[in-house]
Amino acid sequence: MTSLGRDKLESTLRKRFFYTPSFEIYGGVSGLFDLGPPGCQLQNNVVQLWREHFIVEEDMLQIDGPMLTPYDVLDASGHVDKFTDWMCRNPKTKDYYRADHLIEQTLKKRLLDKDVDPLDHKRMEDALATIDGFTGSDLVRTMQEYRINDPVTNDVLDAPTPFNLMFQTNIGASGQSKAFLRPETAQGQFLNFNKLLDINQGKIPFASASIGKSFRNEISPRSGLLRAREFLMAEIEHFVDPLDKSHPKFDEVSDEEVPLLSRQLQESDEPHLPVRMAIGEAVKTGKVENETLGYYMARVHQFLLRLGVNKNKFRFRQHMKNEMAHYATDCWDGELLTSYGWIECIGCADRAVFDLTVHSKKTGKSLTVKQKLNTPKERTKLVLEVNKKLFGRKFKQRAKLIESALLSLSQDKLYNKHEELNKNGKLTFQTNGETVEIDQNLVSIEMKTTLQHTREYIPNVIEPSFGLGRIIYCIFDHCFRTRLDDDERTYFSFPLSVAPIKVFITTISNNEKFPSVMSQIVRTKEIYFKVDDSNTSIGKKYARNDELGTPFGITIDFQTLQDETVTLRERDSMRQVRGTVEEVISVIDKMVHDPINEFTWNKSTAGLLQVAVP
Amino acid sequence: MTSLGRDKLESTLRKRFFYTPSFEIYGGVSGLFDLGPPGCQLQNNVVQLWREHFIVEEDMLQIDGPMLTPYDVLDASGHVDKFTDWMCRNPKTKDYYRADHLIEQTLKKRLLDKDVDPLDHKRMEDALATIDGFTGSDLVRTMQEYRINDPVTNDVLDAPTPFNLMFQTNIGASGQSKAFLRPETAQGQFLNFNKLLDINQGKIPFASASIGKSFRNEISPRSGLLRAREFLMAEIEHFVDPLDKSHPKFDEVSDEEVPLLSRQLQESDEPHLPVRMAIGEAVKTGKVENETLGYYMARVHQFLLRLGVNKNKFRFRQHMKNEMAHYATDCWDGELLTSYGWIECIGCADRAVFDLTVHSKKTGKSLTVKQKLNTPKERTKLVLEVNKKLFGRKFKQRAKLIESALLSLSQDKLYNKHEELNKNGKLTFQTNGETVEIDQNLVSIEMKTTLQHTREYIPNVIEPSFGLGRIIYCIFDHCFRTRLDDDERTYFSFPLSVAPIKVFITTISNNEKFPSVMSQIVRTKEIYFKVDDSNTSIGKKYARNDELGTPFGITIDFQTLQDETVTLRERDSMRQVRGTVEEVISVIDKMVHDPINEFTWNKSTAGLLQVAVP
Repeated sequence: MTSLGRDKLESTLRKRFFYTPSFEIYGGVSGLFDLGPPGCQLQNNVVQLWREHFIVEEDMLQIDGPMLTPYDVLDASGHVDKFTDWMCRNPKTKDYYRADHLIEQTLKKRLLDKDVDPLDHKRMEDALATIDGFTGSDLVRTMQEYRINDPVTNDVLDAPTPFNLMFQTNIGASGQSKAFLRPETAQGQFLNFNKLLDINQGKIPFASASIGKSFRNEISPRSGLLRAREFLMAEIEHFVDPLDKSHPKFDEVSDEEVPLLSRQLQESDEPHLPVRMAIGEAVKTGKVENETLGYYMARVHQFLLRLGVNKNKFRFRQHMKNEMAHYATDCWDGELLTSYGWIECIGCADRAVFDLTVHSKKTGKSLTVKQKLNTPKERTKLVLEVNKKLFGRKFKQRAKLIESALLSLSQDKLYNKHEELNKNGKLTFQTNGETVEIDQNLVSIEMKTTLQHTREYIPNVIEPSFGLGRIIYCIFDHCFRTRLDDDERTYFSFPLSVAPIKVFITTISNNEKFPSVMSQIVRTKEIYFKVDDSNTSIGKKYARNDELGTPFGITIDFQTLQDETVTLRERDSMRQVRGTVEEVISVIDKMVHDPINEFTWNKSTAGLLQVAVP
Repeated sequence: MTSLGRDKLESTLRKRFFYTPSFEIYGGVSGLFDLGPPGCQLQNNVVQLWREHFIVEEDMLQIDGPMLTPYDVLDASGHVDKFTDWMCRNPKTKDYYRADHLIEQTLKKRLLDKDVDPLDHKRMEDALATIDGFTGSDLVRTMQEYRINDPVTNDVLDAPTPFNLMFQTNIGASGQSKAFLRPETAQGQFLNFNKLLDINQGKIPFASASIGKSFRNEISPRSGLLRAREFLMAEIEHFVDPLDKSHPKFDEVSDEEVPLLSRQLQESDEPHLPVRMAIGEAVKTGKVENETLGYYMARVHQFLLRLGVNKNKFRFRQHMKNEMAHYATDCWDGELLTSYGWIECIGCADRAVFDLTVHSKKTGKSLTVKQKLNTPKERTKLVLEVNKKLFGRKFKQRAKLIESALLSLSQDKLYNKHEELNKNGKLTFQTNGETVEIDQNLVSIEMKTTLQHTREYIPNVIEPSFGLGRIIYCIFDHCFRTRLDDDERTYFSFPLSVAPIKVFITTISNNEKFPSVMSQIVRTKEIYFKVDDSNTSIGKKYARNDELGTPFGITIDFQTLQDETVTLRERDSMRQVRGTVEEVISVIDKMVHDPINEFTWNKSTAGLLQVAVP
């Protein structure tokens, strides 16, 4: 879609109150949006489909936690340090710009200049290709190198500085308890790992899930609904044994073809076109790291198609090495093509042990799985033992403290102390800031073999994460159509399950006998009818309901009064059929309750009278 | 329920992970809670029932807006000034107490003292009865009068000071854009009034609705789930013509009996017991102010009974005059009785024109309904007219500005100017900080009669507001039971539509042939089964699923392998029947899809073999 198409799309969305900028009568706040009734209903439908497709189908453990999150939690997770964008300030106007966006925007414009030196051209293209992996100092350097100024005023900007994107607040009356609004829904799932494992009867693998709002204090949000400061997310944390990342249902999806833009393809000089490949093949050949990650990618693909996204405007793009978090094993972004370019809507990452480890370290609480071993395992390791009597006599009340510090030494350190003891007949070590010297008659360090009856391990986490708000915008973008014969007549071809309203029902004119017939029909069935009793022409009613993406319309006309038949109209083809109320409702019923799209319009209406539309 | 019962209730809720304090491994944050899988599913069910009962049934316009809300909006709504609690600080320990809670707690304790002077006794009782309406200075005075100290340390406390209960943050990079987390979901609905009216084709009455999280920075939250700092709300704003507050569907509910504790009853010396009365009668006799308010009270009552609350533990308590906002016409709180006393869970208020007026004033945007009059109305008023030619000659480029300032004068002011003009032959007035003198040949002010073809008015707002989190806690409280013969065996008697899991399915033992039979049954029907394949006795499985409030259990046993029959167990009666898988599923099906509770257990299982339970 061109940006003209985008303007038309966004004006239709606003005209029909799918959404509106929030607080508009107060001048609005950029990056905040209200969903109006059709947008809200569509969002409900998407959430419901997500819940069915993932939580119910996979028997996931859903939890719902607060958005307010204490400082310590997000410090441990790395968000306090790393959830930042770099921003440049115009010291005169006090406007702020996101450094990476500014560089992209400026270099793209300069590339259009025909007089640009070929060498410079290449350098700018390289910068653009790798900017997603730029560090802060890369950004500072690039801003200087290309002398990038304020794009509006051409003022010289301050050098980029990091800006934490979390909204900060305080909990309680004292103002001492610093907290943030969560940037994602995942942390609550990690923190509850032990409880989740417990209600899953200690069994692994299992998945948890959360649906809810998250927050990101964007520096200067543009791109409409795609860059919201408050947005709906859905996240899955799948906990799995690091030694076995197979998925019990992988066979069910292994034939699913997904479009993969691998790291290798992105590094090549070829055009960056994804390759369609069965996910089974992708895992077998090592393109995708493991079965569980592959399983979710296939399920994500199926989910998006159910929502009505254009399958040719979707790809999984693998993270480049410099883009991926250091702890992650593999990561693929589900991206959708819109008039704003390719938009990251979903992330599928194997995050290994990172999350559980950081929270366990920070709190001192163990977040592990204890697996009973059928055959106990021998383990040989260095063991330090203390002669308690002599130790107590020498260190008195400090004895316990020193002993426990010694017993917590790692195998590496024990090895060094063992060497030291052999060499010097004593060992020295630091605890509580003092140096303690321990004679060889007080301790022994020896290699011993023990039998282990349980295996204790930190599970790995595979995380499919969904930006539902962004996905909804892409549904709008992909389903927006104009009529072949009239550019001004637009409509949304939402799938039946996504459409805010399934059927509108109206009358051909204002005859006084019509309303009672109408209410009779509405009461017949529970299908979510919406009555359109506006005082306007039937053509305008059709046009309005097309813009709302309502798949079907029932019209009551004068013939209805004679033979109780009504017309049923289909949105995309604009074809109409006529039948009794019962027949028409039965047709709609079939199509609404049809998870596998077996009942097409043609098949379902075959027995009814086809109406010629002028 | 005694507080012993409460401990048991809360430990069961935590054991089965209905909820847990958030961030528990970090030490927790009081007033923040996570819902675990059963709690989350129960919450989903309650939200779904609310949506069906209100939004779908009444064709309401749902909107979904951000929690982040700019300062100006909440300044206009009055929350910046008035959404406060008074707190007392212990200057030594730095602990904070809510002044009203502290007074209540202390006086209640002192009343138990047998030596208290009868006059003091009466005064303390009076204070307790009216404390909900106390102003800040009432609280300061009472704290001093009774010399109320820190209940833990007995330290003297600082005098109470107001504390705003909204969480504060900043939007954007500059830190200049002060914002709050919304304390309720209503404001977004008021701000969108014009758009809502527009998509409702300009017709009134109509209702909008929002479901979402709101926030309240409680000073020192106790009372568990009832005093959360972040909580789920659902709010309806019903916009109505102030001259006609009838409700088109009132007749459908007028016989609904609701328990009313009127203002009058609360002021009487009688015990404060509510009176059951048909809502039609209550509106007719003026006990409830109007039909629309009464309609919602009846619908709220129906809703709560569907959720399984005990009808004898519910009342509508009318606000006392000093409790009610100055602009409100009438207000009734829906209160539920729990071990913490009567808890306000729902508010039903007629807020008149307050909300639309304050936002209209602050923004200068009109938020009104324009109604076309069938017969135009005469209206006589003072009209100011300007001699444009002379005016232009005199004021030059300032002419337009001064003219428009004159034309916007209210009728009151015009009257004064009219007098002034008659008396002095000129008028003076202030605009843009300067005093302008206008001679009588430049303007005229005269009484004129005009014909009005439209009526323009600010609609009144009737607001039913639901604390869904609190309602959920009350469901837990009201549905918690212990078995007659064993105090330690507890269960939740949730209604089928509320229960997190409808049916669990399990096997009598670990026979290797059972799992395939089980998966066959699970696949037969879409009913939300939960498999319990834990490695424990059948008795323990029943006990666990009782604690989860699962209404039905299917057990596969050795007879199943012979004749394909299974047992079906009902939670409350613990009765069991046996039938073929098909029969049993058909029984469950009937009961699950039975909105009017027609299919009782006895009726539905009449044809099946009754199993004697030991």
